[in-house]
Amino acid sequence: MKIKLGRIPYVYPIPMALAGALVEGKPNFELVGDTGLMGVNPPLVYVSSSREHYTNRGIVEHQAFSLNFPHSGMMAIADYCGIVSGREVDKGILFEVFYGELLGAPMIAECPVNLECKVVHEFSIQHRQVFVGEVLQAYASEDYTELRDGKRALPDLTRLDPLLYALDNRYYTIGKPIGFGYQEGKPVGK
Amino acid sequence: MKIKLGRIPYVYPIPMALAGALVEGKPNFELVGDTGLMGVNPPLVYVSSSREHYTNRGIVEHQAFSLNFPHSGMMAIADYCGIVSGREVDKGILFEVFYGELLGAPMIAECPVNLECKVVHEFSIQHRQVFVGEVLQAYASEDYTELRDGKRALPDLTRLDPLLYALDNRYYTIGKPIGFGYQEGKPVGK
Repeated sequence: MKIKLGRIPYVYPIPMALAGALVEGKPNFELVGDTGLMGVNPPLVYVSSSREHYTNRGIVEHQAFSLNFPHSGMMAIADYCGIVSGREVDKGILFEVFYGELLGAPMIAECPVNLECKVVHEFSIQHRQVFVGEVLQAYASEDYTELRDGKRALPDLTRLDPLLYALDNRYYTIGKPIGFGYQEGKPVGK
Repeated sequence: MKIKLGRIPYVYPIPMALAGALVEGKPNFELVGDTGLMGVNPPLVYVSSSREHYTNRGIVEHQAFSLNFPHSGMMAIADYCGIVSGREVDKGILFEVFYGELLGAPMIAECPVNLECKVVHEFSIQHRQVFVGEVLQAYASEDYTELRDGKRALPDLTRLDPLLYALDNRYYTIGKPIGFGYQEGKPVGK
């Protein structure tokens, strides 16, 4: 039997990211759960943020942003970046900041993975402003990569140890690998 | 030190959902990782799917879709729904299907949580078609709810046991709760 829970967008889990932007000449980072994948080729991601947020101003001005994925050990500082606004607190000084090609996409060295994004589409629904970004470059901390076929690649998620969230307002860790895409379903159709 | 990984949209983990649509009068379900949260109020989610996918035809026609979140025990059947197209296989018969208000949003009874969505915005970037949906109703299987303050509510994610994915092509389980939003960061600013 199904129970109605109301008009609530229960996507779960929500991958948490620190969205980076350059606002009034300074790097600013906002903790967001309103982010995700929109396609691999072209490589598209997005961030959705209320119009009044300080971050939005920087994204609009520079047409760029970054996504920085904290590990679970960064939970307290990431949560802090979701509590305080860049209007009151200089969040750029909390991290070691680095840049790729885009001045408008400051990135956080402490985060295992960073995506440098150029805005390719933008729309609004009520107070939400949604910025769709094309990934110009993905970066990983060397400590969070492994050699595979002679090239540096991302390890599995248990090593990346991402910070997850759900609408029960709890943070979660990742569990364990249980199978492979486009493989597990093969016996089903037989 | 940071390593460049190329133009790859490494969002992780990716919450897996079976996107439901009514195509040529029949329910069809496509496994998608290109989905996520765009805001709580209004309750916005999206699905991004290549224009040639069979599912897209139904979403365009009915301006509706559903998101159905499988538990990890459904990995094989969910993966199967990502391997085969509704053009060749009637995927509606794989599940017990139910409906809310929208004829165009068939939902899967076996999935712990279902979102019934009306399309409120649509755009394309190259071959990707992105459908933004407003959640008209969220449903949960009674077995996957708990009483809280006299009302049925979702339990924590360890009970919902969602199926996660990453671009290393592995499926993952959820880990454990480690903290609360808007709480863990409070000591940081002190």
